[in-house]
Amino acid sequence: MTRLFNDPSRFADDMVTGFAAAHPEHVRAVPGGVVRAERPHEGKVAVLTGGGSGHYPAFCGVVGPGFADGSVIGNIFTSPSAAQAHSVATEAETGGGVLFLFGNYAGDVMNFGLAAQRLTDEGIPARCFAVTDDIASAPAEDTTKRRGIAGDFVVFKTASAAAEEGASLDEVVRVAEHTNARTRTLGVAFAGCTLPGQDEPLFTVPEGKLGLGLGIHGEPGVSESELTTADDLARTLVEGLLAERPADSGAENGRVAVLLNGLGSTKYEELYVVWATVSRLLAEAGLEAVRPEVGELVTSLDMAGCSLTLTWLDDELERLWLAPADTPAYRRGALATPTRPAADVRTRSPRARTSAATPAPAVAEGAGADTSAFAVRALRTAHTVLHEQEEALGRLDAIAGDGDHGRGMCKGVDAALAAAERAESERAAPAALLAAAGDAWAAEAGGTSGALWGAGLRALGAGLPADRAPEPKELAAAAESALRAVTALGKAEVGDKTLVDALQPFVTAFTQQLGDGTGAADAFTAAARTAHEAADATASLRPRLGRARPLAERSIGTPDPGAVSLATVLVAVAARA
Amino acid sequence: MTRLFNDPSRFADDMVTGFAAAHPEHVRAVPGGVVRAERPHEGKVAVLTGGGSGHYPAFCGVVGPGFADGSVIGNIFTSPSAAQAHSVATEAETGGGVLFLFGNYAGDVMNFGLAAQRLTDEGIPARCFAVTDDIASAPAEDTTKRRGIAGDFVVFKTASAAAEEGASLDEVVRVAEHTNARTRTLGVAFAGCTLPGQDEPLFTVPEGKLGLGLGIHGEPGVSESELTTADDLARTLVEGLLAERPADSGAENGRVAVLLNGLGSTKYEELYVVWATVSRLLAEAGLEAVRPEVGELVTSLDMAGCSLTLTWLDDELERLWLAPADTPAYRRGALATPTRPAADVRTRSPRARTSAATPAPAVAEGAGADTSAFAVRALRTAHTVLHEQEEALGRLDAIAGDGDHGRGMCKGVDAALAAAERAESERAAPAALLAAAGDAWAAEAGGTSGALWGAGLRALGAGLPADRAPEPKELAAAAESALRAVTALGKAEVGDKTLVDALQPFVTAFTQQLGDGTGAADAFTAAARTAHEAADATASLRPRLGRARPLAERSIGTPDPGAVSLATVLVAVAARA
Repeated sequence: MTRLFNDPSRFADDMVTGFAAAHPEHVRAVPGGVVRAERPHEGKVAVLTGGGSGHYPAFCGVVGPGFADGSVIGNIFTSPSAAQAHSVATEAETGGGVLFLFGNYAGDVMNFGLAAQRLTDEGIPARCFAVTDDIASAPAEDTTKRRGIAGDFVVFKTASAAAEEGASLDEVVRVAEHTNARTRTLGVAFAGCTLPGQDEPLFTVPEGKLGLGLGIHGEPGVSESELTTADDLARTLVEGLLAERPADSGAENGRVAVLLNGLGSTKYEELYVVWATVSRLLAEAGLEAVRPEVGELVTSLDMAGCSLTLTWLDDELERLWLAPADTPAYRRGALATPTRPAADVRTRSPRARTSAATPAPAVAEGAGADTSAFAVRALRTAHTVLHEQEEALGRLDAIAGDGDHGRGMCKGVDAALAAAERAESERAAPAALLAAAGDAWAAEAGGTSGALWGAGLRALGAGLPADRAPEPKELAAAAESALRAVTALGKAEVGDKTLVDALQPFVTAFTQQLGDGTGAADAFTAAARTAHEAADATASLRPRLGRARPLAERSIGTPDPGAVSLATVLVAVAARA
Repeated sequence: MTRLFNDPSRFADDMVTGFAAAHPEHVRAVPGGVVRAERPHEGKVAVLTGGGSGHYPAFCGVVGPGFADGSVIGNIFTSPSAAQAHSVATEAETGGGVLFLFGNYAGDVMNFGLAAQRLTDEGIPARCFAVTDDIASAPAEDTTKRRGIAGDFVVFKTASAAAEEGASLDEVVRVAEHTNARTRTLGVAFAGCTLPGQDEPLFTVPEGKLGLGLGIHGEPGVSESELTTADDLARTLVEGLLAERPADSGAENGRVAVLLNGLGSTKYEELYVVWATVSRLLAEAGLEAVRPEVGELVTSLDMAGCSLTLTWLDDELERLWLAPADTPAYRRGALATPTRPAADVRTRSPRARTSAATPAPAVAEGAGADTSAFAVRALRTAHTVLHEQEEALGRLDAIAGDGDHGRGMCKGVDAALAAAERAESERAAPAALLAAAGDAWAAEAGGTSGALWGAGLRALGAGLPADRAPEPKELAAAAESALRAVTALGKAEVGDKTLVDALQPFVTAFTQQLGDGTGAADAFTAAARTAHEAADATASLRPRLGRARPLAERSIGTPDPGAVSLATVLVAVAARA
């Protein structure tokens, strides 16, 4: 279990502080993560890795010459926010554009996607690429639904090496795609990991069994079977991967990059015992392992288990795989020892960091100020009720997730309320006020729900007038716009057991009541009641597969925490605001 | 727990196979361990690390340019045998002499000491140095009794760097001594590790507690206390070490090499959280951390815990600490990528490996052949009874040790019997036959008991005539000589709860009976009975502190497994041989 921490909610922050203090030759801390200590030459594509923490050396351990330019560091097993990604990118980029690389999880796709959009809007070319190497997470004909696990490392490595060679942004993206298309991973788990501050592991595997294909946050795998010998495990992993040999690898020379990766508590000696057999089986299959890596490359706190990754190399990929790199956790080949950065490099003023997408704070006039005041009251009510319910929401989330939903919602609403109050004191119009609140929520809460609440609040305000009370049809349009923003970002549909299961019924009922001529307050109250019933009804649904949703079937019979928190806020706002 | 293995008794062998297969650029496997893939220049001092396995990257992970020349690899938590150390040394040395470096444990001191003696006898200058950095294992006025833990790493590093610079054997020994004198480590454990093939951890710490100063095999620590925050732990470790600041560090520049070492399941992110506070506290104490290492350097399988090591640097030590190195597990600075060794280097014929100390197999004549035949019969009886008792001896050992005593005795007697039978078929005299049997026992069993049985058998035969039956006084002298060899090597006295508690009474009784004119067979039978009673009486003794004797007090009330196995063999030989 994870035992060493101070305040569990500050674990990632404390970790980054210590990490940067330990590696001043390689990295410096910036808001949202770390960048290389020494600024690369102008015009180099900035390759940024990222994701939740708890996976060290993924993702921040591979920042340095020959590898990544920076890393965006979320809380444990939680996507960083778009604001974090944007912040790290503005510190790291030197005019060649930005590529965000991460594993394929909803929260990461969402937040890095938002950051890339914002950078592009600001004139900085930015792209995203999500690694999909985990063959156990979706069938071969549906590879885009696969998760990214230890194969992240190979894709990060080759793409970073291409950027170091001076490739353009398009070229670096092509290398990432090409590597990913030839990379396959299969993993097993024997025991779950425990999050800081919790007493129980995130998931369990019966003693003497192994979970084949279990994800690195405990997401469901393919099957559970007897844990037998190291030889048998090696054979299972090698045969599983060879069955998925990429179609275009036939003409190649049979050379593969290989990672035998330990997840945390499965130690080096055990991995070497497995490697003795893996290396023999690969040779028997006619494959030559090119600079194999045996060790901990993508971990899951103290989870017990391991994975095997194969990347079928061609000449280009082999060159990039073997290129030298010098980072805190990974050093290969002959690069000069990095020197401490010159002071002027360290203290260079960052580029403008205010998002160009934030609307200018138009001043609220007349009844427009009433709308802003109502929004602040509503956020204050949300603040009160979410803090009251923090523990209950956490318990709900702990049944199938990592139990941090209550904490995340509180962090989000704290930031949103503070931003809204500041905006109101500056007499901001409703659109600007809700945009500021939404951005603050997304930035502080991080993760999937943070990004969704942020996008929803921003969209909610966008059409509201600055100088008068909104018409009923403007209110309906605002609600529909919020729903669209959430579904566009999260891709969830009704029935997926997400907050959409409460939001969509709310918006439908609210719009219908307004259309029937009901007053806004009564329409809101009725719709909130509908949302509340809908949230309860999510108990019967099968959950959508997502990050930190281990052994998802456990949650059948309990309502979705995201839907519950939304409904709770809506009902409280109807009653109190 | 340790889950991935094939035959648990072959864990270390399988591990070395996989390790060498994963790192052909750095190491090649040789009998007893590994040496650098590329042979260093002639005349360089060969620095060899070693000890039991289960501590990766200690000890074999740091073999390569700038660091060790080879590593001697014992079974899990068991000292390698003297024969292994001798074998690796003959492969690694290039004319500059050999230095064995290891942590201060009885079995390692014994086996490396024997190997160094044998090398010296063969004309290869060889020395030993045992690291004693663990401040919790003995008081400051008794530093030579301290164990070696993570501080091994710093001593290995600076001594290896000195050898790489071309220092002489004396100089390299001086650097090791100097580094060790300025190195202090304090560790904590939260949970024990589980040996391959076992279901229960080697020791336990109550949940929510930490064992301060617990050894890396679970040897007793200083105290047990509440596990609080990472900050508090950092303070405990820093304050504990600063209280033991070396006396001669006053005039120095306040620069320290630092290791924050994870023992296995305590992961990188947790260590960085602790490092955030450790680095601040060191700065407040006026100490500058020079290239700190935060990670897994000396582990204990999947044990949970960590340790902090400080080495007060002077200019020489700082230069050696910062010198580049390129090994499987540790790479720093700018060394060229090692190339695969040329085939002629790999296949060079090893130097003569037969120990010069093995007496030439004089041919047994007349009644001398009867003595040899008796020795073989006695070993056959020992073989039978030890295999019968293997499990019982393991259970006895598991109470306070790692439960492998029965296994080790069987491995030893299997090898000794085979060697004795071979020697008999070549009509070897008793001295040569028992020397061959003893050497085989020590080489195959490894560990402390293997070395002791090996030395005892060799000494037992040394004075026996080749051409006639031994006189009673020659038999008494042989028994006394065996006892002297065992106590000289093991340094144990009667009352320390070791096999000496059975051996000494046996020898005393046997000698006395012979002196009284009793026939050899009757004297042996009576003495064996005495030994058996003495072995039972060890149940009341307090154990001698040794490797793999965790929470040693647990063994009070059970007899010592080493004494029991000796007595069991003696009684069986008296009855059957």
